[in-house]
Amino acid sequence: MQDMIKVAVDAMGGDNAPHEIVKGAVDAVNMRKDIQVCLIGRSEAVEHELKQYTYPKEQIILTHAEEVIETAEPPVMAIRKKKQSSIVIGMNLVKQKEMDAFVSAGSSGAILVGGQVIVGRIKGIERPPLAPLIPTEKGVALLIDCGANVDARPSHLVQFARIGSIYMKYVVGIKNPKVAIVNIGAEEEKGNALVKETYPLLKECEDIHFTGSIEAREIPHGEADVIVCEAFTGNVILKLYEGLSSTLLSVVKKGLMSTFVSKIGALLIKPALKETMKSFDASAYGGAPLLGLTGLVVKIHGSSKAAEVKNAIIQCVAFKEQKINEKIKNNIVSSEKGKE
Amino acid sequence: MQDMIKVAVDAMGGDNAPHEIVKGAVDAVNMRKDIQVCLIGRSEAVEHELKQYTYPKEQIILTHAEEVIETAEPPVMAIRKKKQSSIVIGMNLVKQKEMDAFVSAGSSGAILVGGQVIVGRIKGIERPPLAPLIPTEKGVALLIDCGANVDARPSHLVQFARIGSIYMKYVVGIKNPKVAIVNIGAEEEKGNALVKETYPLLKECEDIHFTGSIEAREIPHGEADVIVCEAFTGNVILKLYEGLSSTLLSVVKKGLMSTFVSKIGALLIKPALKETMKSFDASAYGGAPLLGLTGLVVKIHGSSKAAEVKNAIIQCVAFKEQKINEKIKNNIVSSEKGKE
Repeated sequence: MQDMIKVAVDAMGGDNAPHEIVKGAVDAVNMRKDIQVCLIGRSEAVEHELKQYTYPKEQIILTHAEEVIETAEPPVMAIRKKKQSSIVIGMNLVKQKEMDAFVSAGSSGAILVGGQVIVGRIKGIERPPLAPLIPTEKGVALLIDCGANVDARPSHLVQFARIGSIYMKYVVGIKNPKVAIVNIGAEEEKGNALVKETYPLLKECEDIHFTGSIEAREIPHGEADVIVCEAFTGNVILKLYEGLSSTLLSVVKKGLMSTFVSKIGALLIKPALKETMKSFDASAYGGAPLLGLTGLVVKIHGSSKAAEVKNAIIQCVAFKEQKINEKIKNNIVSSEKGKE
Repeated sequence: MQDMIKVAVDAMGGDNAPHEIVKGAVDAVNMRKDIQVCLIGRSEAVEHELKQYTYPKEQIILTHAEEVIETAEPPVMAIRKKKQSSIVIGMNLVKQKEMDAFVSAGSSGAILVGGQVIVGRIKGIERPPLAPLIPTEKGVALLIDCGANVDARPSHLVQFARIGSIYMKYVVGIKNPKVAIVNIGAEEEKGNALVKETYPLLKECEDIHFTGSIEAREIPHGEADVIVCEAFTGNVILKLYEGLSSTLLSVVKKGLMSTFVSKIGALLIKPALKETMKSFDASAYGGAPLLGLTGLVVKIHGSSKAAEVKNAIIQCVAFKEQKINEKIKNNIVSSEKGKE
């Protein structure tokens, strides 16, 4: 059991809990021998779900959590008061190094607050960013930051660029990842005050491959691997990605059903189209890690199904094996030294 | 000629000038008797294009412009120095009330600067917003502001909401248009400093139908008619709309071409799909007006073809007929009075 990756999973979080969460955990351990999952939630409900599946018993353990933090609850208060909630218990297990990672589809606010307050930041990290992978024509890109802490400072964005590069290089396997800052034009003198101040700082960073500004138009084309922005902008990009993809698909579907001939055509294209659209499905890439913490916290979408839960759990393996947190720590230390 | 709408058109602006621009102008006057177009550009080139078409000669006049402002030129300098450029001449015609409107696919920067410096703002307007219509599942929405002046103040956003409501009501014909502010959550307490300060001000406006925050995910679903944001965010939304739509369509096309059966299916669905996608094509809705000026200036996409040029020209008719500028002026006056 020594080399196992231990992942705590919030069995009560999200719209499809506990059913899809438990199923995802079972799928993950059935796929890999090196993962142990600790499901956290109301034991009766979780046990009831677990009974339906066959899996190596030693790979799933259960920790009872009496309380659940609801999405609508004010996060700071919820984390402080609900000590017996699945989120607080999971975060504490990571803090105490009993678990390597915590995966939750629960309240974003509570996960962001809990990550900072309970798990805690790596020394030198100013603000831990939430960094989901988004699909592009060429593969995936890391959108950093999409968290809840808006109105960032230039130094935050520089750290995001560094942390994001480490993540893309070692977890996703991109050699010399291209880093770009979201801007409203390609030229250095364009942008708002934050971008104008950050741009020259990024140009000076010798440890990243900074390629300049990226306009939102180029993001889906895969022009950069690490897309740096403050959280308000990141949030707009992430959510527009979701909204526009689903709207365009529904427009396409409506078109397919509009005539008799097109309906027949739709039947013929369905399998091929399904296969291709999979490659552009954000949920396939696991969750969004909250980076820069002393342990790993992964936020998955509230509507996550078993496949996303499974992918998020498996994503934790590369994070641990590649010692991402040590690499972040060393990078922060050496960049601090560079300043002296 | 008294009741004609007079539209100056930059024959030299954009990637497809002068060919597509001239064609669009011809299409517009062939469609409507009440439009007179003044094409501005190198007369030889424009005349050469015009020769190819049949149209009512009195509806198209030509003004020679020796110079062209290139996209890469610093806008302020270009507007100051190139007095004989199509953009400066066109703006001056609007300023002197010889023309009702100016349409250009040229340098965005020069159009924004020229609009403010040459045409000038309506008294009381703090910052003229660039406001394109974007397609949604339910029709269109006005995205206000997408201009180049970033780091806006709350009072700017409040004016955008008011001006945008007038535009959607009288030009697009939406009764009681729903106004929402772009935010990263639905709750009032969410957002960056700008949004948090603006939100209560919008709630107090009795002359608009403010519905609260809108997350970027909901924009394509058509949940609001007037989408208020500062220009950096607006720019990201507009350009991601363009980039993601083209990427998703190319992903879908790739899927359609992946198997023999799907290729046959693709042939069957093509006509129906094309028809539906048209409704989701941003270019169908004319250009983006630069609102709050003493005359009308419309920016169209640099890659505009004849159809977009024609639509932008025709859009000017409703703007003039509905006396949008008078309505904006009266609204500003009455809202100023409200403050006293």
